[in-house]
Amino acid sequence: MPASDELPVREELRGKSPYGAPQLDVPVRLNTNENPYPLPEPLVARIAERVTEAARTLNRYPDRDAVELRTELARYLSRTAGHQVDRTQVWAANGSNEVLQQLLQAFGGPGRTAIGFEPSYSMHALIARGTGTGWISGPRHDDFTIDVEAAVRVIAERRPDVVFVCSPNNPTGTAVDAETVLALYEAAQSAKPSMVVIDEAYGEFSHHPSLLPLIEGRPRLVLSRTMSKAFGAAGLRLGYLAADPAVVDAVQLVRLPYHLSAVTQATALAALEYTGTLLAYVEQLKSERDRLVTQLRAAGCEVTASDANFVQFGRFQDSHAAWRYLLDQGVLVRDNGVPGWLRVSAGTPAENDAFLDAVRKLNKTAFQKETAA
Amino acid sequence: MPASDELPVREELRGKSPYGAPQLDVPVRLNTNENPYPLPEPLVARIAERVTEAARTLNRYPDRDAVELRTELARYLSRTAGHQVDRTQVWAANGSNEVLQQLLQAFGGPGRTAIGFEPSYSMHALIARGTGTGWISGPRHDDFTIDVEAAVRVIAERRPDVVFVCSPNNPTGTAVDAETVLALYEAAQSAKPSMVVIDEAYGEFSHHPSLLPLIEGRPRLVLSRTMSKAFGAAGLRLGYLAADPAVVDAVQLVRLPYHLSAVTQATALAALEYTGTLLAYVEQLKSERDRLVTQLRAAGCEVTASDANFVQFGRFQDSHAAWRYLLDQGVLVRDNGVPGWLRVSAGTPAENDAFLDAVRKLNKTAFQKETAA
Repeated sequence: MPASDELPVREELRGKSPYGAPQLDVPVRLNTNENPYPLPEPLVARIAERVTEAARTLNRYPDRDAVELRTELARYLSRTAGHQVDRTQVWAANGSNEVLQQLLQAFGGPGRTAIGFEPSYSMHALIARGTGTGWISGPRHDDFTIDVEAAVRVIAERRPDVVFVCSPNNPTGTAVDAETVLALYEAAQSAKPSMVVIDEAYGEFSHHPSLLPLIEGRPRLVLSRTMSKAFGAAGLRLGYLAADPAVVDAVQLVRLPYHLSAVTQATALAALEYTGTLLAYVEQLKSERDRLVTQLRAAGCEVTASDANFVQFGRFQDSHAAWRYLLDQGVLVRDNGVPGWLRVSAGTPAENDAFLDAVRKLNKTAFQKETAA
Repeated sequence: MPASDELPVREELRGKSPYGAPQLDVPVRLNTNENPYPLPEPLVARIAERVTEAARTLNRYPDRDAVELRTELARYLSRTAGHQVDRTQVWAANGSNEVLQQLLQAFGGPGRTAIGFEPSYSMHALIARGTGTGWISGPRHDDFTIDVEAAVRVIAERRPDVVFVCSPNNPTGTAVDAETVLALYEAAQSAKPSMVVIDEAYGEFSHHPSLLPLIEGRPRLVLSRTMSKAFGAAGLRLGYLAADPAVVDAVQLVRLPYHLSAVTQATALAALEYTGTLLAYVEQLKSERDRLVTQLRAAGCEVTASDANFVQFGRFQDSHAAWRYLLDQGVLVRDNGVPGWLRVSAGTPAENDAFLDAVRKLNKTAFQKETAA
């Protein structure tokens, strides 16, 4: 019994473990969808400059409303996501996890429910639990696309307060098209006026344009984004949303005051000055992702079509044993608990080669012949 | 009607305004208990150095468990707070607000209640609301000390799951003695095993030693601290707690993964290298705080004894009008809604002089004669 069970911890937390991928020291780490490219040195220098400036007034609280940062995020979205937004439509927090937590605090919470179509980003369900929001697991097709008919039916029946749509979906890589989102939004509105949150954390890696334009005229549609992946800044913890200004007003009722530190704001602003360079890395990663798909198929794997910076591959009768085999070859991928499947993040060309070599070796083993489905 | 009322925002949030002191551009800002001393330049340079290093791996997630930072925070507490603690007893988050939010997510939440003795730090009640925790307003004596007998009675009757004790108390400046904490802890344990959280955000400014040693042998006692005030780093958003390791385990069940950015961890570690310099500023502020108390009394004000870096003064029949008068003199203080009282943060000697001049002028006005209680 963990010591915390002696404490009056909430019932639903007892016996649980903290969320998080194993952090192992391995030559090739392709398990958390990090961007493999370190920030370019001129950007590192610009961060130091901006943070130095911020540190000179660090005795003061940061801009509570992060006005400059939200303005620049709005400019970035307007330039790259096919729809004009301004600062009043953008909100930022410590990672998109905190953005989603604030949305659930405002629109979910005790006595309310949220739905996601699983397998999907498992933090959606965990943040629901952390905010006292009931969780409904919605269906997908066997190919991991959303089963629209079934989804609309379950929304009509269960009337969730918040609908999560992850596109591209983590861990499967599946993009969701605009028609599906609109069908879900409509279903969510006829059940009762519910919020629909598109989690577009991997949006920049997609073959398809952003779903951002859909927020126009849909006050209960929210798009969530992050700087962790496309900006190569997982260490920064900067997530943001775009939606009707009323949604931004609403999350401000639950956000902790001064939630976003002055150093975080300064660092994010520096990174936003370098979107050109950073989006060039994204293009490289997209082509590596496509290469992974092709090569994995050539190596005899089944592969889910991917619009993200990672690829779901399989199928294994014992995916955990396959995960372990790759780890023994020095390659860490992710076992997300989807039976038969593993997930690999697109790394540098050299990292991807090492991974592909390990997979080819795996596919030649007697073990693999026994466990392949 | 604000636009957010058209959204399916939770009932208890409708019509509410976001928390936060007015951010006004005024020559003398003594309203948010900020440390008036900017960080020394060598520390600013050290922050730039540490952040540069962190920025070079910003594409990777930060240390999820903030091991180095928690080790240094434990070392700081052990050296300055009269009790030896190690990393397993320390947890850190984005401001003590997030620490308190995590505690309420783990030990409060839907169907549970928390109590505070008001007036106190108003975020306790707001974070309770944000986490679905019921709120109980406990009593104080007229001199703002905790009415132990009444407090023990209400704890026995209402059986709260979490008891907040703010010492020194914000906004009154009142320190709580160990005997009072022990009486409340005992009451909280006999009602049912409940958590007691000592919010010691202003601990370093007290005439009395830290209450940290009380955690020894009391697994349900938690001490919360911040780097915002004593470390002159309100812009950094770094709060922490010390408690039994089981409490640290418990908050990890609700913390968002990678909640603490690499730049925040780097900046905090830099500041922890400069505790000598920073604690010297604290000594200056303590003596200025004591001077404010003496001079305010000499100017005819009633003053609550203060162990914090701020002073509660009054009494005004119309404290908001007095607040407005001081603002017109270029001095921003805080109206915390405690009838008859205002709160002023200890600033630099020059800022405090400007404030004292404005108060003397206020006390000479016909307006003041009419409104003094």
